[in-house]
Amino acid sequence: MDFEKTSSQDKIEGRNPVMEALRAGRAIDKILVQSGEKNGSIIKILAKAKEKKIAVSYVEKSKLDKISSTGAHQGVIAYVAAKEYVSVSDIIKIAKEKNEAPFIVLCDDITDPHNLGSIIRTANAAGVHGVIIAKHNSVGLNATVAKTSAGAVEYTPVAKVSSIAQTVEQLKKENIWVVGADMDGENTIHTHDFSGAVAIVIGNEGKGISHLVKERCDFMVRIPMLGKISSLNASVAGSLMIYEVVRNRLK
Amino acid sequence: MDFEKTSSQDKIEGRNPVMEALRAGRAIDKILVQSGEKNGSIIKILAKAKEKKIAVSYVEKSKLDKISSTGAHQGVIAYVAAKEYVSVSDIIKIAKEKNEAPFIVLCDDITDPHNLGSIIRTANAAGVHGVIIAKHNSVGLNATVAKTSAGAVEYTPVAKVSSIAQTVEQLKKENIWVVGADMDGENTIHTHDFSGAVAIVIGNEGKGISHLVKERCDFMVRIPMLGKISSLNASVAGSLMIYEVVRNRLK
Repeated sequence: MDFEKTSSQDKIEGRNPVMEALRAGRAIDKILVQSGEKNGSIIKILAKAKEKKIAVSYVEKSKLDKISSTGAHQGVIAYVAAKEYVSVSDIIKIAKEKNEAPFIVLCDDITDPHNLGSIIRTANAAGVHGVIIAKHNSVGLNATVAKTSAGAVEYTPVAKVSSIAQTVEQLKKENIWVVGADMDGENTIHTHDFSGAVAIVIGNEGKGISHLVKERCDFMVRIPMLGKISSLNASVAGSLMIYEVVRNRLK
Repeated sequence: MDFEKTSSQDKIEGRNPVMEALRAGRAIDKILVQSGEKNGSIIKILAKAKEKKIAVSYVEKSKLDKISSTGAHQGVIAYVAAKEYVSVSDIIKIAKEKNEAPFIVLCDDITDPHNLGSIIRTANAAGVHGVIIAKHNSVGLNATVAKTSAGAVEYTPVAKVSSIAQTVEQLKKENIWVVGADMDGENTIHTHDFSGAVAIVIGNEGKGISHLVKERCDFMVRIPMLGKISSLNASVAGSLMIYEVVRNRLK
């Protein structure tokens, strides 16, 4: 199977995400700062950039507005050389090195960058070893994802694979339980036993988990729905599952 | 104290939200449909509109694009006469009529419409009796909130108050436990006892729960943070709290 390493040229926008990227030691080609900007957090970014010998250019606000993808650059945009994706094996290795049972999040075609960013943020907060996304039909690690993740993309290994279904098979061979959320699940998130090595599958915003992936999951669990609405936002549903694993691990 | 009833002229965009509004019997002045649109869900909307004697106008896609606030009208926009906000007392009354201990969500200055929509969606799914938002410094029930809520605004009573802090006092007088999330909380969401009448406070995206509100909360609880990121998305954090109440009530 092919879990190739890929990379993407990208930019990071906003004071907090840029500072996090600097702190995380991410390779930055250049930082654009708004002329005359004297905000405290910008000054810290400039000091860190100087320390790391990263080129800084002062530009007009209008230029930053034009370059910005998020519309919320806060006077600073960093050009990142490349964000290296890891492989699925790398993620399993990270867990083994920490002497922890693997804890992985699989995104089965998340298309909204706000959802992917929020999922990566929760994944980092929950101590997940890595997030796996699909190469096609999914959003990648773009500027909106980085910003929505509140800097978590810097700390969270992300693998990009050709097929989530094949990846589920690979994880099962590694003795990792693969658990998806579904309205017809037998157990609820509150009654399922989330102990051991586990991968949580989060489905697409509109279609949920694809048939090919669902039939390969070890368990499908249900989130109780007590109102008139029959589904939750993808990142919320995923976060509820992720924190059930946290509950189990902190017991 | 003044919990005045307010109303807002608004529009609902997209096939699912418009259909939900029709199903919920919400007062709709007029529906704009893209000329030549023959999608199955549009046909269902047209049938429902005819049944309810609601005026339908066919317009060009460019007109819908211009009117649209969300950029995702899917060929249909409904003009809603008014979405009536309820009062805090109404929400407590709803709980009493259902013979259930009140379960309320307070939003302490949520400014991102995607977050408010997602919170209302979770609140409905979790069987919350009502959501309370602030009159100032907060987003109201606009078109983006309605769309992000996946129709849940139709079924979830929302009250708009002048002061969240004063509302906390009012809820406490009604013997409702008020619980906020905070990094310094003594118990975690996994160890706190969420039984009884309860109001969950969700803080602002950047600043968290305000000082005035925090000092009035009965309990501050912590969401375990195991990674390098020190906070979660507001709607995710709120949803984790909300589903702890669900866990308790389904026991």
